[in-house]
Amino acid sequence: MKDTRQRLVQASAALLQRQGLAGTGIKQILADAGAPYSSLYHHFPGGKDELAAAAIRVSGSTYQALVEAVWDQAPDVISAVAAVFDGAAQTLESTDFAVACPIATVALEVAGTNERLRIATAEVFEAWIAAGAARFASEGISAGDSYTLAITVIALLEGAFILSQSLRDTGPVHAAGAAATAATRRVLASPSGGGHDPVARRR
Amino acid sequence: MKDTRQRLVQASAALLQRQGLAGTGIKQILADAGAPYSSLYHHFPGGKDELAAAAIRVSGSTYQALVEAVWDQAPDVISAVAAVFDGAAQTLESTDFAVACPIATVALEVAGTNERLRIATAEVFEAWIAAGAARFASEGISAGDSYTLAITVIALLEGAFILSQSLRDTGPVHAAGAAATAATRRVLASPSGGGHDPVARRR
Repeated sequence: MKDTRQRLVQASAALLQRQGLAGTGIKQILADAGAPYSSLYHHFPGGKDELAAAAIRVSGSTYQALVEAVWDQAPDVISAVAAVFDGAAQTLESTDFAVACPIATVALEVAGTNERLRIATAEVFEAWIAAGAARFASEGISAGDSYTLAITVIALLEGAFILSQSLRDTGPVHAAGAAATAATRRVLASPSGGGHDPVARRR
Repeated sequence: MKDTRQRLVQASAALLQRQGLAGTGIKQILADAGAPYSSLYHHFPGGKDELAAAAIRVSGSTYQALVEAVWDQAPDVISAVAAVFDGAAQTLESTDFAVACPIATVALEVAGTNERLRIATAEVFEAWIAAGAARFASEGISAGDSYTLAITVIALLEGAFILSQSLRDTGPVHAAGAAATAATRRVLASPSGGGHDPVARRR
């Protein structure tokens, strides 16, 4: 059996993803974790906020590892970008549109209401942007263009998640995936991208 | 003085935008609206959910009207898309990153938890997509490409809002705006877009 701290973090992460922060009570977290009330303040003296910050960071690194694993299996960068969106669409369908971004709901809730948790979400997004930018830079794209392209691709995924979850339709994630691969092709074909990759040619 | 029903809807809309649904209590809505408790069930027999659905619909149509007004002032479609993102970035800065999409937080909260409100958010997004698609179609772009482009542009805006609000940085909205204008140029230059517009030429 996993240790209590880990169970608390994982139960919180799952609930925050589906219900957000305000909709998730401590009682429900403890029940899902099978943990006594005393364990919360033993492991997280800062209470719900400290636990939520830990859950946000774990969710962020878990999701990043998942995306990087998908990326590693693709034969080239265009296929990798496409595979991330295809995988996201498949996850939406297989979970009845319940599982998309693990931290977006909380990020929007806390942006203007909870500075400690806003910083936790910002650190996750910064890590994702840095990881994406490093992937694009390894294709010969300039640092500046790699950074902007990573933001563009992540924005497309996050925005499409909102639309797809609301509409209960994977169409937006597929449209966003096509836009993300087109944006990647465009940068690869630009002077900064070197234009050496045949798949980077514009249609 | 505005009538009580209108004050309830506007107070709810403002609170839902900043705090989301679960974080917004009836007491706070009534206090902000300066309305007595009895007025809630008089005007909204369905209670908080019925009031929230009305607020989502009003917020959605107000935001759409704002974006369409910005669009109408632009000399061409590329400038219009750019102006929407520039305006969004200015609003983020002038409100200390508090005001972005009026319904995104609620849309993510309710996607898997409240079917009545999910449908309200879906109707708003569908209206926005239809309005965007009509704008693009009026440029000679095919119906299918117009619909996909509208989804892409809205996804970019929604996703960039999450990143910009979390990072407290308008950079993502500006990056997404550049990606949105590039995507629009690409479609205009494609066979379906006619390619007659000089600004549609690829760089």
